[in-house]
Amino acid sequence: MEKLLVAKIGGNIIEDQDSLDSFLEGFSRIKEPKILIHGGGKSATQLASKLGVKTEMIDGRRITSAENLDIVVMTYAGLLNKKIVSGLQKCGSNALGLTGADANVILAEKRPVQFVDYGYVGDVIMVNADAIQGFLNMGIVPVFCAVTHDANGQLFNTNADTIASEIASAMSKNYEVSLFYCFELKGVLEDINDKDSVIEHIDLEKYSQLRDAEVIADGMLPKLQNCFDALQKNVSKVHIANADFIKNNQTKHTTLSL
Amino acid sequence: MEKLLVAKIGGNIIEDQDSLDSFLEGFSRIKEPKILIHGGGKSATQLASKLGVKTEMIDGRRITSAENLDIVVMTYAGLLNKKIVSGLQKCGSNALGLTGADANVILAEKRPVQFVDYGYVGDVIMVNADAIQGFLNMGIVPVFCAVTHDANGQLFNTNADTIASEIASAMSKNYEVSLFYCFELKGVLEDINDKDSVIEHIDLEKYSQLRDAEVIADGMLPKLQNCFDALQKNVSKVHIANADFIKNNQTKHTTLSL
Repeated sequence: MEKLLVAKIGGNIIEDQDSLDSFLEGFSRIKEPKILIHGGGKSATQLASKLGVKTEMIDGRRITSAENLDIVVMTYAGLLNKKIVSGLQKCGSNALGLTGADANVILAEKRPVQFVDYGYVGDVIMVNADAIQGFLNMGIVPVFCAVTHDANGQLFNTNADTIASEIASAMSKNYEVSLFYCFELKGVLEDINDKDSVIEHIDLEKYSQLRDAEVIADGMLPKLQNCFDALQKNVSKVHIANADFIKNNQTKHTTLSL
Repeated sequence: MEKLLVAKIGGNIIEDQDSLDSFLEGFSRIKEPKILIHGGGKSATQLASKLGVKTEMIDGRRITSAENLDIVVMTYAGLLNKKIVSGLQKCGSNALGLTGADANVILAEKRPVQFVDYGYVGDVIMVNADAIQGFLNMGIVPVFCAVTHDANGQLFNTNADTIASEIASAMSKNYEVSLFYCFELKGVLEDINDKDSVIEHIDLEKYSQLRDAEVIADGMLPKLQNCFDALQKNVSKVHIANADFIKNNQTKHTTLSL
């Protein structure tokens, strides 16, 4: 099977122009077919603040009112997505920016209200792998922001880590997929105060131990859950690494396996 | 040659939810391949005002500072484009939102400073008709907002009427193209105070007379220039019509010819 690289970059990379330029340059040099997914929560929060709109987060998830959704769509699908797309074009990668609504690539449903009403937050139902493969066959580099839709006219705010995991899984039908979560740290750390204490390999058993010992906690828990979800849905390799890893894959990082 | 419909809608349609829903429903019913281009200047001006950013217009054109460009990109490529794309998906049209940077579909250059420095305003150099045809062949309905790029990382604000004319012209190589400028009036009016005084047919000679008599003035001048540019570049038919025309093509409207 043909190889496919799926990379997700977080806000800290996107919102620093030098980090972003460096990442996009390295990413563009990868010869195999590739897909990029980006977040951008910090920019959305900044715009909300400038507009006097309240931002409320519960467990790191944004409570998305209609007003917040407009801000999310403007920031993710507008400002950040087009900055990344034009940056990739500059590097010679034929990027195409996408929300889940574009070409109906990601269908989602409104998260049901249980203890918390997250508002216009969508959970992924289906990734249209055929449409994405159609773009890849045209030599296009799809660039996804964290916005999905319900095919009934409603857009949703959806977690970018989850989108990356779902896309990587769906594409594994026809590709040997490597999934990279790129962020500001070098990987999952044994000691949060020691940036070099990278845990180089985590399997399900180790994950369970680290969770029990609370070495992995807070925002790292859903990230690792997305990693293992992807592995269980036939993604070949999953890595958590610094954004520089894309340029130098000898750098110490975390590799996940079942 | 296969037929292709290219329609441009202005801000007054986009910014009124009922008008937009009605237009998108009619547009979706058209069986032949189709392309939509949209403006949205009013929404950009509103966002600028909320953010305390000054909007300066000269001859109806926005002076686009770096701050204004961000606002234009957020509004056109984010909020409005995704509202239209998700609205078309609801109607069963497989819409894909595009700026000129996406898949490198519209290349532009910064408008040279002569008497006025328009800032980040781009003039179209090239429309990538092959890429657009690739999307049409996938059953996709391309939806363009009024943002282009220079392939060197710079986005531009570009007039939506001009983009529509340039796209229609470029696609005429392989399609029999009809171009529709849809707006809130019924067409070009003989008397601006009489909404029913539609001039049903304008050729180059009539255009010259109407211009001399100042029946056509201000914003109508560049719109008509775009129409004639398209006709001179092999677009088959050009119409200026009310948005309802897309549902009922018996409605009185203006047809242009050379």
